[in-house]
Amino acid sequence: MKKGQLTVAVVGATGAVGQEMVTILEERKFPVAELRLFASSRSKGKSAKFNGRDVPIGELVFEASLFRGVDIILSSAGSSVSKQFASSAVKAGAVVIDNTSAFRMDAEIPLVVPEINPEDIKKHRGIIANPNCSAIIMLMAIAPLHKKNRIRRVVCATYQSASGAGMKAMRELEAQTRDVLEGRPVKKEVFPHQIAFNLFSHNSPVQSNGCNEEELKIIQESRKILHDDSIQIVATCVRVPVLRAHSEALFLEFEKKMSAREAREILRQTEGVKVVDDPKANYFPMPIEASGKDDVLVGRIREDGSAQNGLALFVSGDQLRKGAALNAVQIAEKLIRM
Amino acid sequence: MKKGQLTVAVVGATGAVGQEMVTILEERKFPVAELRLFASSRSKGKSAKFNGRDVPIGELVFEASLFRGVDIILSSAGSSVSKQFASSAVKAGAVVIDNTSAFRMDAEIPLVVPEINPEDIKKHRGIIANPNCSAIIMLMAIAPLHKKNRIRRVVCATYQSASGAGMKAMRELEAQTRDVLEGRPVKKEVFPHQIAFNLFSHNSPVQSNGCNEEELKIIQESRKILHDDSIQIVATCVRVPVLRAHSEALFLEFEKKMSAREAREILRQTEGVKVVDDPKANYFPMPIEASGKDDVLVGRIREDGSAQNGLALFVSGDQLRKGAALNAVQIAEKLIRM
Repeated sequence: MKKGQLTVAVVGATGAVGQEMVTILEERKFPVAELRLFASSRSKGKSAKFNGRDVPIGELVFEASLFRGVDIILSSAGSSVSKQFASSAVKAGAVVIDNTSAFRMDAEIPLVVPEINPEDIKKHRGIIANPNCSAIIMLMAIAPLHKKNRIRRVVCATYQSASGAGMKAMRELEAQTRDVLEGRPVKKEVFPHQIAFNLFSHNSPVQSNGCNEEELKIIQESRKILHDDSIQIVATCVRVPVLRAHSEALFLEFEKKMSAREAREILRQTEGVKVVDDPKANYFPMPIEASGKDDVLVGRIREDGSAQNGLALFVSGDQLRKGAALNAVQIAEKLIRM
Repeated sequence: MKKGQLTVAVVGATGAVGQEMVTILEERKFPVAELRLFASSRSKGKSAKFNGRDVPIGELVFEASLFRGVDIILSSAGSSVSKQFASSAVKAGAVVIDNTSAFRMDAEIPLVVPEINPEDIKKHRGIIANPNCSAIIMLMAIAPLHKKNRIRRVVCATYQSASGAGMKAMRELEAQTRDVLEGRPVKKEVFPHQIAFNLFSHNSPVQSNGCNEEELKIIQESRKILHDDSIQIVATCVRVPVLRAHSEALFLEFEKKMSAREAREILRQTEGVKVVDDPKANYFPMPIEASGKDDVLVGRIREDGSAQNGLALFVSGDQLRKGAALNAVQIAEKLIRM
């Protein structure tokens, strides 16, 4: 990667993650010489604010010339879009940091959480994959513990916000909530089931083994990021009527005893993690407090006597920031420092 | 218990559970000759509908004479209230079916889910305890499996509705939701934290071992009901912005292999359980569909390869009905048939 100011493109700039990417590039003073924004033709004529200026949003067309001169592309416009443009963008000289599931499990492509496996960035050949949001948020809490004392098994139950299904899903949660409060029938456009005052098993296709795709991502991506194919993971992924932060109840089984005190100490020293764990005040991680924050909140840290070397945790992390846009920008930051 | 029509009292008749008790007595045509309703002095002058008539709500005073002539008392007015009146009511000849935690772990007092341990009713000496809502809903799904093939360990993550904290908590969820939608600051009166578009670790005191009281109830009460002190249970209890049904992600470890197919078959034949498990349609238990229903909905039934003989489930059950009022009335029904 060249030094100095860069030409950066955001693909999917009008989406919930894309907007957050633009905000975070500005907040973190990423060295942007020129920002180019792309979205589908539906966003024609729109623009977005960046450092006080209006940046027009161009239509994403699948032509090799589109990304000429672009150094880094942050992409979050869906898996099929990424598959269409990524290789030609790489040929044109750009590095693609891709927030979709298109390339995550490709053995040749690094899948990175910068606090956990930054060294994998070096192996890239033009594409670096940004992991699934639930996987990132879980791993932020468990990877530092796993490094000290191997985790044999993770049981994960998620409480996932609407934002994971995009901006329209967040608006649907609000609109349905108004409908329920006013006694009107709810309209379902994004989610298959009512989300207002309700919850349901994650709306991704269910495989023949009974796992849905979100659960499979947590299992497979975690193994790849931790470089540990033998860690056992089971997850139940659930959508809850929360706007933009995911929470997870985690139950860990370690190789050797891990005390709650030691886990708390390790997590207190972990970059990107904030320990929120005050039993006396009954104050623990909550999605409204994780929203808009960079840190993943971790609490309810306690030993679990029901399993050998068991430890339980509860985490909340902003799905749009650390779960998506922030992690992508952090990958870009590591990349330009290498 | 005498045969024929009975004099029944409901203590805490204006509460969310108490109201449901009155409704269920009527729905199930419980043999009520006379219904007496009691609540605190705050409810003076109120009445409730029962079989088309208005039944006045009397003030609960702690005098032995109050329950003279009463055969069965359904009580749901808080632990301290139950402790004050129960023994004198028993002396006056009534059987108390108590929905509070006052007597649940008393070795002399049966703790009953009628589908699971009806025979324990026979041991009563005047008081029968109705279990914790989360414990009942979990046990309805796991007890029939445990009977066929011993469960060694249960991992439980709950998604608990506002109704578990009473009527005021349900109204608080609605009021806060309106406030958030209108951009007003939220008022917290019942819950320690905002519940609208948020979730938080269950609002019961946290013990020195890191478990909160709700989690402890699930562990201890399940062991008592299953007559199995060695079953290992860990729970993380979480309040979610749902009105009146609790959901739970359950991860079971059996002594011998339990296939998803076998589990589904057992649960299909279980009274009080409805299997809602359609992976193709992504249709599984949801709290809005469990609300107002007697059955506990069970789905996401799948083998869990991360543990030896593992099986995962997801359940939703109406907290006010099977989790409280219905179970209490079902105990009374069994009692009068004995």
